[in-house]
Amino acid sequence: MSDIKPKFLEVYSALKSELLDDPAFEFTDNSRQWVERMLDYNVPGGKLNRGLSVIDSYKLLKEGKELSDDEFFLACALGWCIEWLQAYFLVLDDIMDGSHTRRGHPCWFRLPQVGMIAISDGLILRNQIFRILKKHFRGKPYYVDLLDLFNEVEFQTASGQMIDLITTLQGEKDLSKYSLSIHRKIVQYKTAYYSFYLPVACALLMAGENLDNHTDVKNVLVEMGTYFQVQDDFLDCFGDPEVIGKVGTDIEDFKCSWLVVKALERANEEQKKLLYENYGKDDRVCLAKVKELYQTLDIQGAFEEYESKSYEKIMKQIEGHPSKAVQAVLKSFLAKIYKRQK
Amino acid sequence: MSDIKPKFLEVYSALKSELLDDPAFEFTDNSRQWVERMLDYNVPGGKLNRGLSVIDSYKLLKEGKELSDDEFFLACALGWCIEWLQAYFLVLDDIMDGSHTRRGHPCWFRLPQVGMIAISDGLILRNQIFRILKKHFRGKPYYVDLLDLFNEVEFQTASGQMIDLITTLQGEKDLSKYSLSIHRKIVQYKTAYYSFYLPVACALLMAGENLDNHTDVKNVLVEMGTYFQVQDDFLDCFGDPEVIGKVGTDIEDFKCSWLVVKALERANEEQKKLLYENYGKDDRVCLAKVKELYQTLDIQGAFEEYESKSYEKIMKQIEGHPSKAVQAVLKSFLAKIYKRQK
Repeated sequence: MSDIKPKFLEVYSALKSELLDDPAFEFTDNSRQWVERMLDYNVPGGKLNRGLSVIDSYKLLKEGKELSDDEFFLACALGWCIEWLQAYFLVLDDIMDGSHTRRGHPCWFRLPQVGMIAISDGLILRNQIFRILKKHFRGKPYYVDLLDLFNEVEFQTASGQMIDLITTLQGEKDLSKYSLSIHRKIVQYKTAYYSFYLPVACALLMAGENLDNHTDVKNVLVEMGTYFQVQDDFLDCFGDPEVIGKVGTDIEDFKCSWLVVKALERANEEQKKLLYENYGKDDRVCLAKVKELYQTLDIQGAFEEYESKSYEKIMKQIEGHPSKAVQAVLKSFLAKIYKRQK
Repeated sequence: MSDIKPKFLEVYSALKSELLDDPAFEFTDNSRQWVERMLDYNVPGGKLNRGLSVIDSYKLLKEGKELSDDEFFLACALGWCIEWLQAYFLVLDDIMDGSHTRRGHPCWFRLPQVGMIAISDGLILRNQIFRILKKHFRGKPYYVDLLDLFNEVEFQTASGQMIDLITTLQGEKDLSKYSLSIHRKIVQYKTAYYSFYLPVACALLMAGENLDNHTDVKNVLVEMGTYFQVQDDFLDCFGDPEVIGKVGTDIEDFKCSWLVVKALERANEEQKKLLYENYGKDDRVCLAKVKELYQTLDIQGAFEEYESKSYEKIMKQIEGHPSKAVQAVLKSFLAKIYKRQK
């Protein structure tokens, strides 16, 4: 996969140039510079897995046939649309969560002179997706399906973010509101659809498929996305900040994390009391107490158990799929995330 | 027009019910209550001019023919999509501007428990537009044009908001950056497209028209929208807070308002110095000095002159249009805003 990354990044530059010359808006010099800096800061700096996986998936669906230059460009463009969507959500999430760092750098809204303008920048990022889609896909037979897809996935992601925020509000009053079922719902909507289903759905549309015939693919990918987010929750607490590029703050932020939900499930009354008293406090001592309790309850072991069970379940679902090409797409996804450290 | 308002509000309730039962997302009870409250607080409380004007315009395009129930509902639904778009922008603008009141109530993000969740609510509002469009227009021949239209207008509005924010940053360092040309650009993108062009474009699409054939209509409406925003700038300073539903803070907020741009144009060196020293300060004395200078420079007179010239220019453009039905639509718009007090 690494061999396509430089080409993928070339497409980023091409798309950026087009956007900075969009005829639907008369930029001033200042605003053009602003947008360019904002894009470079927020769009290409991640792992790019979501974006690259569109190309990967499309290649597998074509079963080894060489992609034309045009096909390659279009797959890259869709990949970048997903990276743009991700950037839009991250820029706004960081404000809502009051985060400090992202991908090893200060969050965009933390930069001097940016501040709340970051909200407007989030909207610009979001709107640029549809500028890219219109410019490059307007004439395609699947254009309207592509618009519906991005709209639906954006809606689901925004809804997941909303129940995450509201659940946290409720949980702050009563930690026992956190449960595996609400956690699953948050994770499914907030992460799984856009990170796992969307790239494959884009590739399927490009390959001429009707998405209505692929609800089973959607289901496996949502399952994988859920597993991915549980990993994320795990790494937030147990991962290496140098490797994941941020210092996790889920405990201080009262997040409905898989870890706290699992801890609540395993805790006796006394341990629950300790959680109630120390979870969600911006205080080193409280943080240490929660982490110690996670050790006592062997949450790490619970995670490893979840990880292997989840892997088996997903593998079984994949192997039940009638198409070998689709199986290859799904397996390639799973291989990329199984036992990841970042 | 007032006779359709109750029916229009019934359609709001119907759309809200559908959205709270959207099969693309499994609401929790808490999140359903949250969204209902958020919608009722932010969507229907304005003047509803933008939304109602879709129905109005569509009727005029049909030249008096009675609308079927279905047509009426669809025109209302498009009207509400514009009101939803407006709510989405206002909720987020209020955060970025640090505003306190909106439509005579505290801004949504100022409510206890809301805060930065308002950003997520803004995104929910935005996404619901495309849920409404998909549910009611998916089978229409103009569905894809409708999606492109809303996407393009949202992009232009977000871009206008961005240059407004960036210009204000520049202006804070050097007030002389404010000019009529940058003011016009901000206003055109930030307000005119979504408030004036969008309702008529929706009505034209419903009537089976191709929007590419109506760039002249777009131009008149953008001109009207510009005039409307200049009125807004005027009312922010000279309007009655009881009537306009908010206390204007453009001067304290260093806004690139038509008034300050005009004042800069009319001021001598000494008066410019006074403006540089007192504009954009959150201080009663400074505010009073700026307002006094506006009196001295007869900015009110300049506005009245602008108003009548603008009216004449727009009228002339309208009367040059070949279709009497389109003329009627445009005149009805102009009549609604000419010399408005709120």
